[in-house]
Amino acid sequence: MKRRRFLKTAAKGAVAGAAATTAAAAATGILGAPAIAQERTEWRMVMPWPKNAPGVGVNAQRLADRITAMSGGRLTVKLFAGGELVPPFEVFDAVRNGVAEMAHATPYYWQGKSKALHYFTGLPFGLTAWEMTGWLYYGGGQELWDEVYGGFGLKGFYAGSSGVQAGGWFRDEITGLADLQGLKMRIAGIGGEALRRLGVTVVLTPPGEIFPAMQSGVVDAAEWVGPWNDLAFGLHKVAKNYYLPAFHEGGPALEAIVNKELFEALPGDLQAIVAAACSATANETLADFTRHNIVSLEPLVRDHGVILREWPDEIVVALGEATREVVAELAATDGTTKKIHTSYSEYLEGARKWSVVGDQRFLAMREKASG
Amino acid sequence: MKRRRFLKTAAKGAVAGAAATTAAAAATGILGAPAIAQERTEWRMVMPWPKNAPGVGVNAQRLADRITAMSGGRLTVKLFAGGELVPPFEVFDAVRNGVAEMAHATPYYWQGKSKALHYFTGLPFGLTAWEMTGWLYYGGGQELWDEVYGGFGLKGFYAGSSGVQAGGWFRDEITGLADLQGLKMRIAGIGGEALRRLGVTVVLTPPGEIFPAMQSGVVDAAEWVGPWNDLAFGLHKVAKNYYLPAFHEGGPALEAIVNKELFEALPGDLQAIVAAACSATANETLADFTRHNIVSLEPLVRDHGVILREWPDEIVVALGEATREVVAELAATDGTTKKIHTSYSEYLEGARKWSVVGDQRFLAMREKASG
Repeated sequence: MKRRRFLKTAAKGAVAGAAATTAAAAATGILGAPAIAQERTEWRMVMPWPKNAPGVGVNAQRLADRITAMSGGRLTVKLFAGGELVPPFEVFDAVRNGVAEMAHATPYYWQGKSKALHYFTGLPFGLTAWEMTGWLYYGGGQELWDEVYGGFGLKGFYAGSSGVQAGGWFRDEITGLADLQGLKMRIAGIGGEALRRLGVTVVLTPPGEIFPAMQSGVVDAAEWVGPWNDLAFGLHKVAKNYYLPAFHEGGPALEAIVNKELFEALPGDLQAIVAAACSATANETLADFTRHNIVSLEPLVRDHGVILREWPDEIVVALGEATREVVAELAATDGTTKKIHTSYSEYLEGARKWSVVGDQRFLAMREKASG
Repeated sequence: MKRRRFLKTAAKGAVAGAAATTAAAAATGILGAPAIAQERTEWRMVMPWPKNAPGVGVNAQRLADRITAMSGGRLTVKLFAGGELVPPFEVFDAVRNGVAEMAHATPYYWQGKSKALHYFTGLPFGLTAWEMTGWLYYGGGQELWDEVYGGFGLKGFYAGSSGVQAGGWFRDEITGLADLQGLKMRIAGIGGEALRRLGVTVVLTPPGEIFPAMQSGVVDAAEWVGPWNDLAFGLHKVAKNYYLPAFHEGGPALEAIVNKELFEALPGDLQAIVAAACSATANETLADFTRHNIVSLEPLVRDHGVILREWPDEIVVALGEATREVVAELAATDGTTKKIHTSYSEYLEGARKWSVVGDQRFLAMREKASG
């Protein structure tokens, strides 16, 4: 049955002009020989990131290489950096339209397609990376995501997280809500909208322009990722007040997007390989960011005079209120978004209760015990 | 070259009487046909856990099934629960001796073989699950582990974690160090030794006897895993004071152990499949525990009158001192353990600095913002 399904797809792919290139097997037609094992398919994977960008680009490459290696080359995945095959923000449509078979990205980039996609990257004061996988795999999240992406002919796989991000670089210290009035800050997503409601002028600067914008004074503050990526961007050279952590990104999700029809047409073993490759990449991406953030934080403080700062309480409380307001509006977008909101929120409620007596308290105890 | 290595092994396996059963391929000898794809190997995977034990047994089964599925049955892994093929605590030797090809377990169970193995499960006040993978994959941990296991002819793969565990069930409230004097507690590992040095009488009770030991008063307190597994054991029926979290298990590691010679003899695609299956299982095991702990905590409090308690500060500080003492003795065991200790400790030092401004502060902010 597997063989039949695969052959059917190969035909379909050819008719649709899709990119799967299928080389004839060297040996076929012998009874009992698994001809499937000898089909060779090539998939193009696109991404919005530059080639080998730390954390994102590197792990996308590992994902591509892993699928190729596990399949013994039967499914060879070739990675294209942002702009190589399609512009960075067209990778979603590229997989829909058959220009590529697969992409590495993050769901909220496609919020123009469905507001509900914010939930699959994460919300301000939302789920951590390991809480997120709990929701996706065992709490109904994946099924809801399948519902949204299915409507676009796509299938999404969780592909990891940076873990908690940094709150951003500020030229001047922020002591309370008054300091946010008229502050010009580069910040994306729902977190930016929450800050806007507290008086911040939100500026949307593409990644490559964050450093010059800070240097020239176009913005007074900017957030990017975390110690590892921020150090690479040199943001410590233009501001010394580093607010940690990001209130808006406790564990934002990366994704692998696959053309649903092509995925379902793969034989069972290749489907299992693609799914496991994404899951393994998820595991290793979080490890990669965590390890590199650990080794990047110290030099920022020791060698570059960076001051690690905490968000003032009155700002945290106000951001909590603003976030609830923004998220309530988001949830009201449509029925699907409302349903996803309810599932995410109920799970988050339980996650908060466990994490506050679990991880949070463990980390606090670890400090107390270390003398 | 891959093919040569595989055939060499198959021969070796036969000579050594190892368990790899290799069925002749239906079609061979045709130039260009990948005969490798048609070899079929069966591996036996043993574990110390009962069949389908929540978290551990279930994810071991998923690991076995995933390798089988990804390889299209070329490498079929059959799982044996504790006692089925070998007794629970003999699975390490079983893989060494070729009685099984693979195991699912946790490294510190084999501390009788090498004290260094404690570091690969975790230490009291040690690394969280995602910090641990950072150390293993990108901080030199895996290479050190390979060095230890290589000496036994084995290869270890990280296979996930429960995440932070629970500190245990106490019949009476613990208000300070005085309450620990003469207290009889079921607790395993280095955490148990640290508590012993604070006056606790440590009792080593096998998992199945924890509940009766608590019920009959043989022990006054007992730790097992976390809300999910503890609820299943019914520990809330015999004690109401639930101390959270475990000071000694912030993210203890599970492992897959593979016979090194057999692993290295696999063709490249099957090696990649085994490695990715372990990594994907790691990702999903943490998600599984996290989600189930989240949904198990609430009923414990709501329906069973359990009181969630925090360790008193003076106990945390004293446990920190006792742990440093025990770990210093552990590190002094031999040169390998000392080297591993140094690597783990340096990484932990950096991890503490990042987590205290990252995850810990994010979780605290999330509470503050939630009003």
